[in-house]
Amino acid sequence: MNPKALPLARRADQLVGSVIDSSTSLLAAQKHDIVRFAMGAPADEAIPMEVFREIAGTKLDHSSFTYGATEGEPQLLDQLLGYLSTTAEPTSAERVTITAGGMQGLDLACKIFVDPGDLVVVESPTYTNGSATALSYGAELLEAPMDQDGMVVEALPDLIKQAGRKPKAIYVIPNFQNPSGTTMSATRRERLLELSHEWNSVIIDDDPYGLLRFAGEDIPGFHSISPEDPLLFSVRTFSKILAPGLRVGWVNTDPSLRQLVINAKQAMDTCTNVPNQHIVTEFIRRGGLDDHLTELRSVYRERKIAMQDALQRYLGDRVRCTDPEGGFFLWVTLQGEDAEISTKALFETALAEGVAFIPGPSLSPSGKFDEALRLCFASSTPERIDEGVQRLANAMDKELAAGKAGR
Amino acid sequence: MNPKALPLARRADQLVGSVIDSSTSLLAAQKHDIVRFAMGAPADEAIPMEVFREIAGTKLDHSSFTYGATEGEPQLLDQLLGYLSTTAEPTSAERVTITAGGMQGLDLACKIFVDPGDLVVVESPTYTNGSATALSYGAELLEAPMDQDGMVVEALPDLIKQAGRKPKAIYVIPNFQNPSGTTMSATRRERLLELSHEWNSVIIDDDPYGLLRFAGEDIPGFHSISPEDPLLFSVRTFSKILAPGLRVGWVNTDPSLRQLVINAKQAMDTCTNVPNQHIVTEFIRRGGLDDHLTELRSVYRERKIAMQDALQRYLGDRVRCTDPEGGFFLWVTLQGEDAEISTKALFETALAEGVAFIPGPSLSPSGKFDEALRLCFASSTPERIDEGVQRLANAMDKELAAGKAGR
Repeated sequence: MNPKALPLARRADQLVGSVIDSSTSLLAAQKHDIVRFAMGAPADEAIPMEVFREIAGTKLDHSSFTYGATEGEPQLLDQLLGYLSTTAEPTSAERVTITAGGMQGLDLACKIFVDPGDLVVVESPTYTNGSATALSYGAELLEAPMDQDGMVVEALPDLIKQAGRKPKAIYVIPNFQNPSGTTMSATRRERLLELSHEWNSVIIDDDPYGLLRFAGEDIPGFHSISPEDPLLFSVRTFSKILAPGLRVGWVNTDPSLRQLVINAKQAMDTCTNVPNQHIVTEFIRRGGLDDHLTELRSVYRERKIAMQDALQRYLGDRVRCTDPEGGFFLWVTLQGEDAEISTKALFETALAEGVAFIPGPSLSPSGKFDEALRLCFASSTPERIDEGVQRLANAMDKELAAGKAGR
Repeated sequence: MNPKALPLARRADQLVGSVIDSSTSLLAAQKHDIVRFAMGAPADEAIPMEVFREIAGTKLDHSSFTYGATEGEPQLLDQLLGYLSTTAEPTSAERVTITAGGMQGLDLACKIFVDPGDLVVVESPTYTNGSATALSYGAELLEAPMDQDGMVVEALPDLIKQAGRKPKAIYVIPNFQNPSGTTMSATRRERLLELSHEWNSVIIDDDPYGLLRFAGEDIPGFHSISPEDPLLFSVRTFSKILAPGLRVGWVNTDPSLRQLVINAKQAMDTCTNVPNQHIVTEFIRRGGLDDHLTELRSVYRERKIAMQDALQRYLGDRVRCTDPEGGFFLWVTLQGEDAEISTKALFETALAEGVAFIPGPSLSPSGKFDEALRLCFASSTPERIDEGVQRLANAMDKELAAGKAGR
């Protein structure tokens, strides 16, 4: 039977998948040494694995292995709310639902708000797993330009006018954006909130890295600027501050949406896995999260500097890169004759040289940024970062030579 | 701001939620002793908690806490395929994707196949979490009658003719169905496969209980009857045979669908939580699954008999119940003057008496079966089952008296 004859839903064409996620499987299949700048994963040494294992071996009980409440384990909600009350983003029980990581938060937002054909604004470049989720609900994407202060919000009214209709949702990563590393300015945050009300558009506020600022000053979050704004759907996760394998995150939404969020989640996975919710609960209960974040900030600051230094040392003016004040990523744009290199082609050469990254076009729904790439500085030690950037320079040399030879 | 003004997707009206899942939160909020016949969860004592905890405390490593491959951890896929090769349903790597329990398998099936307005056939009664997932993608549901041999497949052609269009999918739980406990006969399985090809409809083959047969003879599964049938989308889970809190299951699909399944899953949760995949891997690797299943079958057989005996003892002819050969559930239909009792109203009275169940109308998308209820015999010891059924009889006496008093 011809598989084309299977009665697929129309949206099947829009299930585009993720180059980022697929790189996990691709890299696992390689036999040679690879410096991993591709996946946005915390360093192994930044994950308190021994503590998790000790907690799992001593604290899990029968309640850890049966069904949990869809909205999340009550003790985790308690600990989380307690922790958040000490941060710039305190919130309350009727606003929070535990999710399977940030990705399920995005899935919930799109399930609740996005109809087929709806316009969804995304940053350009963006975290394409997020835009892929919007696509999976039939969204049409509008890519908004970025500069060193995040999404160019003042360009939105003209873009929307050209599009001829208001957006249903605006998807932003305000802090240390994935992939660009830039942070949206306070002025632009305020303006974006105004526009969201003018258009009655939801802001899908995806902030996995906000607690990982290692330089500069905090910028007020959307919730600080506009408390209890019903148009804010905020997606948070423990993936970058504790461990992504746990698949535990949360959403912070208007209380009027909570039952709808729970209903939607019941049709997705019944509840978030319980043992990892209990591990996170105990980790927070012991008071370890603040110290852990302090250490992460110091480690990631050192690694960002190491990567910038290595780029300067091995590539100098051949590349330009962003200067993030937190998070995981540098966005590198090839300059001069190197800008002729396709980073998609470079990926293959670099993999053979022993270094992996995400090519720019994989971070834009329309495949822009062929001259750019995303490097994750969080996963590797300074020594490995040096080695990886050196391999990247070698790969660029080879690609450039191949280009000149008219390959 | 009026929450009605939020720009919800049209499907928001169809995010109906789950009475079954909500009962977990409801029961957790009760302060008095309740015998739990409501949730379809394995007994605490049937979950090898100590083994899981020992594995978690000694075998988890750094690879357990970072992102995993979307399709599942390679070592789990290996162990699972190895185990399945010893069962009546062997399969191969290109057909299997690990999921967040059976529920995500249903979400994936509907995401891939169900367009808004598509007709989806469901059993009546059915596992309404499954039908809710289809609704969340805009399906229109057609409820097909059941008898002691499962869905009355021979009634389908007329129902479809009346509906005026072919179904896109047919959702069935062939073994020890949730909630009725009945098993579809071999003849009907064969006929359903024929009809699915005639209509080009996908069979969403949800079988959480198939390995839990404790009486009677195995009936060939859809895969045995029609090997490598591209119209079979099979949803499986460790929830009932190991532990639901793990949220680890799998789908078995045509190889032509696997990349689409992976793409869809990437937009849902990136990957299934990794520590629990590693716990399941080690549990299977040690060879404990077969012995565990043997023990479960014995325990659940004993409990089913205990529940049937208690129903006979305390209610006699006032109820009629099914006689499942495996799984978790008895379907109880009130008889005679008791049939006047609304099981939705009875639920409140029974909860006050200290016993919980799922009322019939919660197990039918159109709210049929007000005179029936689902009892899970798997979660309670024979002694507790006796106590719970006695409380149920008391609650029925009270409801009946209240009805006669013209409440």
